[in-house]
This record gives sequence, structure tokens and C-alpha cells, in this order.
Amino acid sequence: MTPAVPGIPDNEFIRGDIPMTKQEIRILALVKARIGEADTVLDIGAGTGSFSIEAALLAPRGRVYAIEKEPAGVALIRANAAKFGAANLEIVAGAAPEALEGLPAADAIFIGGSGGRLGGILAAADRLLKPGGRLILAAVTVETLHQALAALDDRPGYGTEAVGVHVTRLRKAGGKHMFQAGNPVYIIACTKGGPQ
Amino acid sequence: MTPAVPGIPDNEFIRGDIPMTKQEIRILALVKARIGEADTVLDIGAGTGSFSIEAALLAPRGRVYAIEKEPAGVALIRANAAKFGAANLEIVAGAAPEALEGLPAADAIFIGGSGGRLGGILAAADRLLKPGGRLILAAVTVETLHQALAALDDRPGYGTEAVGVHVTRLRKAGGKHMFQAGNPVYIIACTKGGPQ
Amino acid sequence: MTPAVPGIPDNEFIRGDIPMTKQEIRILALVKARIGEADTVLDIGAGTGSFSIEAALLAPRGRVYAIEKEPAGVALIRANAAKFGAANLEIVAGAAPEALEGLPAADAIFIGGSGGRLGGILAAADRLLKPGGRLILAAVTVETLHQALAALDDRPGYGTEAVGVHVTRLRKAGGKHMFQAGNPVYIIACTKGGPQ
Amino acid sequence: MTPAVPGIPDNEFIRGDIPMTKQEIRILALVKARIGEADTVLDIGAGTGSFSIEAALLAPRGRVYAIEKEPAGVALIRANAAKFGAANLEIVAGAAPEALEGLPAADAIFIGGSGGRLGGILAAADRLLKPGGRLILAAVTVETLHQALAALDDRPGYGTEAVGVHVTRLRKAGGKHMFQAGNPVYIIACTKGGPQ
Repeated sequence: MTPAVPGIPDNEFIRGDIPMTKQEIRILALVKARIGEADTVLDIGAGTGSFSIEAALLAPRGRVYAIEKEPAGVALIRANAAKFGAANLEIVAGAAPEALEGLPAADAIFIGGSGGRLGGILAAADRLLKPGGRLILAAVTVETLHQALAALDDRPGYGTEAVGVHVTRLRKAGGKHMFQAGNPVYIIACTKGGPQ
Repeated sequence: MTPAVPGIPDNEFIRGDIPMTKQEIRILALVKARIGEADTVLDIGAGTGSFSIEAALLAPRGRVYAIEKEPAGVALIRANAAKFGAANLEIVAGAAPEALEGLPAADAIFIGGSGGRLGGILAAADRLLKPGGRLILAAVTVETLHQALAALDDRPGYGTEAVGVHVTRLRKAGGKHMFQAGNPVYIIACTKGGPQ
Repeated sequence: MTPAVPGIPDNEFIRGDIPMTKQEIRILALVKARIGEADTVLDIGAGTGSFSIEAALLAPRGRVYAIEKEPAGVALIRANAAKFGAANLEIVAGAAPEALEGLPAADAIFIGGSGGRLGGILAAADRLLKPGGRLILAAVTVETLHQALAALDDRPGYGTEAVGVHVTRLRKAGGKHMFQAGNPVYIIACTKGGPQ
Repeated sequence: MTPAVPGIPDNEFIRGDIPMTKQEIRILALVKARIGEADTVLDIGAGTGSFSIEAALLAPRGRVYAIEKEPAGVALIRANAAKFGAANLEIVAGAAPEALEGLPAADAIFIGGSGGRLGGILAAADRLLKPGGRLILAAVTVETLHQALAALDDRPGYGTEAVGVHVTRLRKAGGKHMFQAGNPVYIIACTKGGPQ
């Protein structure tokens, strides 16, 4: 059976020790990316591949490129692609921005990790993104958030919005529901050549 | 042009003075409801109709019932349904649970407001929800959150998860981005007759 | 040298495996308790004793009673009292409300844990609290928060306020500052016989 | 009667239209500043003077300088100083860093606002702060947070910690308690010449 996407529960992904974007953050990033069924999607810093997998299932007639430099991550993405039957997902083993060379123009680009090279990645993403395309970035540090806002919010022709999302899970323990905080993630969402 | 759903920006809805669920919360509620294109959906306490509109666009071959007791809300739902061309949206003017009588069995039920009558509404929702259906509840008070968890988390045959979502918008002012908090909303999501 | 109180850093306390209230929450609870230098203070569910220690140092001519039922907690409180030279701290090994019998009337009562017996503890606290005294409760579950609000916010002659506090630490890693969330804690603060 | 400090309720201050640091944030900033009774304290960007007033009451044998450039703020600080009897509070009408010239060396410096001139203010604060003194900064924008961390967290001889504080007030309405979010504030606390 095809899983309902977006919204695959976290524990259905094969995870290893790689940090994984949590379900609620992934849902918001995927929805804000407005992925169409024939879209070309780039997932930069793909980690376990959870975003790529859901994007691939949302774009059955399109193609998703998962760029990841860590061999452990590449192995997880491969395992998850097999588990969820994402045949339209292509793994690009390597570090952005170099690994982005030769990739096709994209309808949506998601930047989940930048390995300290955000400037070069944003420049490459801008070149690869089609007019009207969507650029989504997830930031978990002050520095990435600041750099991304500085680069994107004043870019001519970009419409940009930014939100921080704090998810508190209610975990049942001893008949009570504990407030259990997840780390906040900031999502920056841009439309190339148009309003937000 | 059909708007991209889910994820219609808040400012595209006609709003009046009725409080409206914010975009990120609405996206999470809609995705967790796993609405299919031919589904029957109930939106209890529909307010401005923002959830109903997006649900109707997600279920073009299905039917959405927006239950709302306030005349001002009913007028806004009607205006928004016209604006977004949601022909499969039916307004039920009245207060739940009474107003739920005669409605068909549902694949998904969203409870956005309960007017102090949550117990009766949950009992009626349980009767109307199909096996495998999804019940989603948004709580903005301690009392509703507590009552909903007590009623749902131990209900035999229900799989339940609950998360609080705090969205902080980064609002640009004077060249800087201010952290601007939205009120937290708790989302309780249940599957009838199955695991979460 | 006497440590600056309130505000002893978390890592100066001897902790073991017992969960400890984090510094910022402890500061807010201590300040809202308005402890005077000759006050009698009860700390119910004292855990590692971090609240008791700081209260004892704020009330050098007063007396603090740390009530704790777990032997591991009692040992930690004793070790911390010795480390910080809190001679005016008395440990009461036992479970509230029974363990509260025989204790003197108090100027401030802090309830950090209730072991599922909040109703009886609140009744005993009400009897022990002097007119004008302060009752502070920390809740980390929906159920405790709900029960405490229900019991305290309408109590005749009590002025009550309640806030949730979410602390996000900025942890330096690899030259960047990660947003790292702590679990939210709700603080309910009451004045007996007067406005908040 | 002398008010209990720190922790004066927000609504006891005369406020006008100037934004005011909320009570919980002010408590944490004041406690982390570790103000002694004979300390010299600078409050840069004093706004309504709420931090200055509480600092002045914590340092009855010391002196607090409230630096504020807006005439409306200066008037509010004067009114609040009179209301709370803070005779040891001196108002410096002007913009930092220029307005800091001629001020004495300080035991604690609080930066609540910087008017876009944070670099110069931090340099002046570093010169004015005594060895062992405390520098506390409140940031409400991404840019100020980023700039302050960059300037302070690697400064040789500074011990620095940083936390974000999100306070959610439980506001009673219609017999229920609504979760009502305040805007997050980031507090950076440094010790000159020593560990955090």
C-alpha cells in the first residue's frame, strides 16, 4: 500500500544515528514546497532521506535528487528509498555546492543541511531554481538562520517568509501526559520571482 | 486557478473578526487528517471556514460539512466557499452536537471549537466516524486539552498522538527580523480502530 | 564564599539520576515565592534539593523543610546541603501529605512534585500556609497543570497567576549556536488572602 | 512599603506606549546580573525604566544609570523612579555609546536596546565593565542575537551563556485558561574575566 504523504510517521523511516527532521517540521517543509506530481526536486543535505522519500511519493511522475555527503546517510537514503518504493529518487553522493553541478533545473529545492557552505549552496540553488520555483531552508542554528535571512529576504524577485516551529510532544507516562519539547526549527520559504 | 492545498496563506481568506486557525496549524491538522479525494469530512466549530475550504479542495469528489453556530461565522464560510470555488462544501448552521444529527458517516472529523460541550461532541463524533477514520482536535485551552486527552487517549480501539505547536513568525521591521510568537495550539490526532 | 542566590548554576549541584529543575525555572519559582530572610519555607517533592538549598540561603535566619520520599533524593539533598553550607535546611524523609504533619506554619510553600496525590497536598498546604503567604507549584504534565488550576484559580481569597516557561539553550557546537529546547514547565503562583 | 524585588508586577509600572520587558524576562535578567547592594549598574536603552527601578532597589547603597534616548522614555523613567522611590537612579538622556562617556566603571551592565549601534555599545560596555562584572543583553531580533553572540561568545576572558525564554501566560476567559504566548526574548549573560 502506498503510504499517505506527506506525513509518514518518524518511526517508519530507517534512521541509524543520523539526526532526522521530525514529522511536523517535514510536513510543513513539504507543504510549503508545493510539490507537484511531475516536479523536479533537490534535497540538499538529505540526511536519512525522509524529506526526499516523501517528496518522491508526492511527485510520482517527477524526479527527486537527494544530495548527501556522508556515506552513512547515503546508505540510509538507499534503504529508505527501497522500503518506500521511491523509484524516482536518485542519490547524489557528494558535498554541495560541487555535487549540484550537472543537476537539472528544479521546481523545488530543500536545504536541510549546508555543512558550513551555505553561501555557495544558495548561489547554486538560485541558478538551478526555475522561475516560480520554491526554495525551502531549515535552520537549527542562529548562524544559519541569520545568514539565510540576510541572503534571501532582500533578494530581488524573491518572496520570503520565515517561521520558527517548536513542537512539544505530550508523552504518556504513569497515566499522565508530560510536555516534552523538541528543538525548534526555523523554516524559510521563498518563491523565486513572486510574492510569498 | 486552483489554489495549492493545503497551505493557502492566511491573508487570502475573508476573515472578519472571527479568530482563524493560523496557516501552519491548519496545514498540520489537514495533513494529519489524511483527507482523500472522495472523503466525507466534518468540520465542527468551523469559524471562518479556513479548514473546511482546504478540506473541500483536497476532496473534490467528496463532501465537507462545516458546522458553525455563529451567524457571522456562517456568513464568512459562505463568502470563502464562493471565493475559493468550494462547491462541495455544505454549511450546517447550528451548534454541535445537535447540529450533527442527520449527517453522514465521515472519513475525517475536525473539532476546532466545542462551545463548552466537548463531551457530547466527542460522543457524537465517535458514532459518526467510520472505522479507520481520523479524528483531529485543536485545543487552545488547558481545560479542552485535558478533557480531550482524558476522553481519547484511553479510548479502546483509538490510536492517539498529541503535540503542541508554537509558531514564531520572523517579522521584518527596520531591517531586522523580530521574533513574534503566535499562541500555541495543541493538536490531538486519532485513528479509530488502529494504531496512530 | 557564599554563592550568589538565587541563580546557582545547575552543574554546581550534586545531581545523581534524579531530574532537577533547571536554573531559569528555579530562579522564577524562587523569586515568585518572595522568600524573606527569616521565612519558614516548605519544599514538597524536593528532588535533589536545588530549590531548598537556594531557599535556605535566601532565608539565613529562617528554616527550610525539604520533604522527599525517595531515599536517593534524600541522600542528594543531604549532600547538597553540606556542599552549600545550608545549616537551616531540615530534611523530612517521607511522602506528602502525611509527611507534612507536625510541620510549622509556612511563609512560602513550593510544590515541585506530588506523586499523584496533589489534592491532599494542596489541602495540607492551604492549612499550613500563613495569611499573605505564597504557594508556588511547578507542573510538567497536563494533568497536574489542570488539577492545580482547577483547585487554585477559583479558591476564595487566593490571588493566582500561571505561566508556562520554555527555555531554549543556545549550545555552541562546531562554531555555531544550536537552538536546544528544554521541556516547558508551568509555574502557578498564589498569594493566600490577597491579589496576585 | 518597599516592593519585593526583583519581581514587581508589570502593571505596577507606569508604561505609556513604550514596549516593556515582561516580568519573567526582567527577573531572569536581574538575577543573572547578580546585583549587589552597593553596585554601580548601567541600563542601556532603559525604555520605561523597569529594569533600572528594580536594579536600584536591589542596590540601595549603589547607583543605577538609566540611559535612554527617547524623551517619552525619559519621562516614564522619571515617573517610575518617583513612584518607587528610587533615589539612587540617575537618568542619562541620550543615545549610547556617546551617552556612556563620563559614566563610572560598572559592576553590571544591562543592554535592553541598542538602536542599531550594538558594535559601539559593546565596545564601550567592555571598557566600562569592572573585572568580574556582569554584562547582560536582551535580544528580540535575529540580527541582534547573532551579532551579540558573535561579539561575546569568543571574546577572550569572557564566560558567556545564552538562553531563549518563551513565556506563555494562562489567561482566564469564560472559565477556561487560554495559552497566550509572549514574544521570545534571548538573554545573553557574560562574566568578564571568568567562567560563566
